[in-house]
Amino acid sequence: MAKDKKLVEAITSMEEDFAQWYTDVVKKAELIDYSSVKGCMIIKPAGYAIWENIQAELDRRFKAAGVENVYMPMFIPESLLEREKDHVEGFAPEVAWVTHGGMNKLQERLCVRPTSETLFCDFYHNLIQSYRDLPKVYNQWCSVVRWEKETRPFLRSREFLWQEGHTAHATAEEAEQRTVQMLNLYADFCEEVLALPVIRGQKTEKEKFAGAEETYTIEALMHDGKALQSGTSHNFGDGFARAFEIQYTDKENKLQYVHQTSWGLSTRLIGAIIMAHGDDSGLVLPPRIAPVQAVVIPVQQRKEGVLEKAAELCGRLKTVCRAKLDDSDKSPGWKFSEQEMRGIPVRIELGPKDIEAGKCVVVRRDTREKIEVDFADLETKVPQILDAVQNDMFERARAHRDAHIWDAHNYEELADIAVNKPGFIRGMWCGAQACEDKIKEDLAVTSRCMPFHDREQIADTCVCCGKPAHKLVYWGKAY
Amino acid sequence: MAKDKKLVEAITSMEEDFAQWYTDVVKKAELIDYSSVKGCMIIKPAGYAIWENIQAELDRRFKAAGVENVYMPMFIPESLLEREKDHVEGFAPEVAWVTHGGMNKLQERLCVRPTSETLFCDFYHNLIQSYRDLPKVYNQWCSVVRWEKETRPFLRSREFLWQEGHTAHATAEEAEQRTVQMLNLYADFCEEVLALPVIRGQKTEKEKFAGAEETYTIEALMHDGKALQSGTSHNFGDGFARAFEIQYTDKENKLQYVHQTSWGLSTRLIGAIIMAHGDDSGLVLPPRIAPVQAVVIPVQQRKEGVLEKAAELCGRLKTVCRAKLDDSDKSPGWKFSEQEMRGIPVRIELGPKDIEAGKCVVVRRDTREKIEVDFADLETKVPQILDAVQNDMFERARAHRDAHIWDAHNYEELADIAVNKPGFIRGMWCGAQACEDKIKEDLAVTSRCMPFHDREQIADTCVCCGKPAHKLVYWGKAY
Repeated sequence: MAKDKKLVEAITSMEEDFAQWYTDVVKKAELIDYSSVKGCMIIKPAGYAIWENIQAELDRRFKAAGVENVYMPMFIPESLLEREKDHVEGFAPEVAWVTHGGMNKLQERLCVRPTSETLFCDFYHNLIQSYRDLPKVYNQWCSVVRWEKETRPFLRSREFLWQEGHTAHATAEEAEQRTVQMLNLYADFCEEVLALPVIRGQKTEKEKFAGAEETYTIEALMHDGKALQSGTSHNFGDGFARAFEIQYTDKENKLQYVHQTSWGLSTRLIGAIIMAHGDDSGLVLPPRIAPVQAVVIPVQQRKEGVLEKAAELCGRLKTVCRAKLDDSDKSPGWKFSEQEMRGIPVRIELGPKDIEAGKCVVVRRDTREKIEVDFADLETKVPQILDAVQNDMFERARAHRDAHIWDAHNYEELADIAVNKPGFIRGMWCGAQACEDKIKEDLAVTSRCMPFHDREQIADTCVCCGKPAHKLVYWGKAY
Repeated sequence: MAKDKKLVEAITSMEEDFAQWYTDVVKKAELIDYSSVKGCMIIKPAGYAIWENIQAELDRRFKAAGVENVYMPMFIPESLLEREKDHVEGFAPEVAWVTHGGMNKLQERLCVRPTSETLFCDFYHNLIQSYRDLPKVYNQWCSVVRWEKETRPFLRSREFLWQEGHTAHATAEEAEQRTVQMLNLYADFCEEVLALPVIRGQKTEKEKFAGAEETYTIEALMHDGKALQSGTSHNFGDGFARAFEIQYTDKENKLQYVHQTSWGLSTRLIGAIIMAHGDDSGLVLPPRIAPVQAVVIPVQQRKEGVLEKAAELCGRLKTVCRAKLDDSDKSPGWKFSEQEMRGIPVRIELGPKDIEAGKCVVVRRDTREKIEVDFADLETKVPQILDAVQNDMFERARAHRDAHIWDAHNYEELADIAVNKPGFIRGMWCGAQACEDKIKEDLAVTSRCMPFHDREQIADTCVCCGKPAHKLVYWGKAY
């Protein structure tokens, strides 16, 4: 039992130091490792398997939404990056530059893509001639590089994995529709699969993507009351089309600019899963995304028949979920701690007495509830329990989120909440960037979004300057 | 029909100019596009979908073989690349160097990974302590960069997609076993899924991977008689382990070096599919890898009931294969040409008369054979036809390959075949690199491999120098 304790004690408690708790979990649950490349991480099997599940489910939803996958070069010539003014200003300060190929200096330096708008625009410029070529709804799964100064596993690293969708449409309406459609696809995915409730909304002018007309976002709340931007979708209007001359002839044979969108979701989301669901024993994975959903742990496994029975049950479980048998020579207590650290949604405990009684004990990771299940009912009960875990995790995360939304009617209230109450702050805003800047500077909270669905007017005046205001904004500290 | 002709006439015939035929096919079948990044290509939806199918099937086989996926950084610090002497000599001349991050010059330049042995070694150095930590059987799917001077779509580009497996084992035997196991996995995959017969064998000292003790390879033959190396698997012995100090304590508590392997397969394989199966009408895809296996093409689709019936049949086909309906307003002839250009294994033609007779015509892409199928038999017959296409494609490729293997017993014969007979040349080799060098210089053929299964002694003496020889080598011109 000394060993078991060691595994658990090695995690700092959330209460004590949330940032350290997070770092402990990503290491101890074997999700990542640091590499000798500063600011870049190694995603280990347990972490990468989560990403594979995210990819598989998201890609399925993309394809159902008419998205086609492509692959673009990872390099962008400097002159190409510079074609759209706002875009290059936003990204140039944080890109990695390739200056030499082999022994030779390049004639033009290339940046490693921080995002691929410029490459897709260059591609679309050549590809699109007629209205018959539209829409183009392309996506790529790849890694991107942003030369960040401060990095944290999954949340901010110099290289990360993501998908980036880039579309071109005949009309502004169609582009707007696609922007919203993809944001909703992200939101539904987060809520249905990751048990992560999100607020869907629009970014302010100040917070939107470099080069976008509108940026939409989904914002989730972490255990510590900080927000995490979990996916964004941008409507570019015809700004990039004008910079890159992407034109098509319409049915009346007139030249028109296309309207474009882009949308992305990254390995950052794994950070959100950790910080929205984890606890002081480690990771808690929603069943729908968990690489292993149920682990069978034999007790007194050297006694005759125990391992055989455990293997039999595991084999049966594999027909209904992602199950695994832990028949290693570690102690059961150690295995329990490992299952908890790794966030496996349920464990199935099974000893000689259970076998005699014809039943096993299913223990939920999220609540630690123990449920006796007759061997005969295993294939029906375990999936039901996994569904219950999934639903309860979502409801708990939503209750936590809703209990951490505070209304501020004036600056005094805003300042009080920003200092004393972790979570989202609802406050009206006049639309002036000066107010956003002041709030950020004085209170260290930023505008997260102007929500789509929550249109309540909680006051008539701006929470900052007191001038008339019609826009409700969710403010918060953010990752 | 003028339009249909245009589509087909745009391809150069193989006879006339094989290289141009290849370029025409990759463009016309919409597999790739050139980008404004020199030497890098854009993989378009039709090309990327082939890669997705390769990934899915290969990854399934990997997982069944105990492989776990991870993701490593794309950058390698120069000092890390230099740790293994042979390796850095092999790769340094063709890597891209990142020298700046944002506005700052880096303290140490980073290369964009040309392959990740050094990163995995650095990782394993930290990860592996005890025999309990072994084996490690990790793989990653990623892109790599090699600064090639001459590039060709899929076959040789500055950036390409691949998977690279990297393993660490307790013993030399286990490493050797894994090296061979993965080569055989590649070979079986090529033969069973891509209908691509391959010769499995070992590379000579001169041709092996930089830093490897042994390199195993699978070599396929293209239509033009040139060989294409389609996958390689390397046994590193403990060379990298010594350079990177990857040691474990064994059961007797003694420090031992691990033994390592690596193995990779890339988008190059799409080039092999094109050049082993294609014809003067375009691409011919093996059904098991084809993104669309059957396309339903209505004839006189404006006549009442035709489109409805076509949609109904397509819906039924979707339950047994990857089917698609082409209900665009192009002419049937144009659609037939497109199906042929894109290599869709079968098309289903369906007009008013067919509907009256209760049957349709299934046309095989590979043989152009037309097969009448009763509507009632569709779900049983089409999969059978697809299986037949798959098998026949393999047999035809094998017959072509076998008809292009020539024996050379002496230098005169070798020189004659090298000039006049495209294909593989079997010839004995004494083992001296001088002979290999001479053959390459004089006759422009290289040693492709020393085959595993073909151990025939076709002569007693080296095909080059006439000294005693025991090794049979397959020689050839190669991509």
